[in-house]
Amino acid sequence: MIIIIASVQVRPDRLDEALVESRKHVARSRLEPGCLSHAVHQDAEDPCRLVFLERWADQAAVDAHFAVPEARAFAKSLGAMADTPAQLQLFEATPRG
Amino acid sequence: MIIIIASVQVRPDRLDEALVESRKHVARSRLEPGCLSHAVHQDAEDPCRLVFLERWADQAAVDAHFAVPEARAFAKSLGAMADTPAQLQLFEATPRG
Repeated sequence: MIIIIASVQVRPDRLDEALVESRKHVARSRLEPGCLSHAVHQDAEDPCRLVFLERWADQAAVDAHFAVPEARAFAKSLGAMADTPAQLQLFEATPRG
Repeated sequence: MIIIIASVQVRPDRLDEALVESRKHVARSRLEPGCLSHAVHQDAEDPCRLVFLERWADQAAVDAHFAVPEARAFAKSLGAMADTPAQLQLFEATPRG
C-alpha cells in the first residue's frame, strides 16, 4: 500500500475556495482505480494548513492518479492559492497488528 | 518508521473541548522520544471527525507513547466525548522517492 501525506499552506483569503476545490478533488479521486481512501483536513492548529491523507493500492495507482488531467489541474489551481509550494510525502506502508 | 492514523467522531457539543484537549496532547506528544511528527486535524467534510496523524521512529517509541499516563488519560477523556470508539491504524512505513 502507498500512503500519501500532502500539505499546503493556503492564503487566508483563498481558504474557502481551496476547501471547495479540495472537497471536489477528494470525491473525484475516491472513484479512481486503486484508491483505498482519500480525504482532506484542516490542521487544528492552523486552519489554513490543508492536509491530504491518501491510501493507494500500489504505485501504479498513484502514477495513474498523478496523470489524471483533473488532478493535475487541481494541483496547479491549489498551488496558486498558496504562498509556498505544497509538500508531498509518499510511503510504502504495511498495516501492523 | 511507524505511521499512526487515528480518528474519532466527537459529539458536536463537545467539539471545542475535544480540540483544546487534542492540541495539548499533540504538543506534549511531540516532546516524547522517537516522535517524528504529531498533529491533529478536522476532516474538511465533517469538522467533528478529528484525525491524528503521527510518525514515530520505531515500535518501541510507540509502545512508550501508549504507556504515558497523560496519553492514556487523554484517550479516555476523548473517548467520553465521542459516540463511537476511536479508530486506530498503525503502519510500518518507508519513505519513497
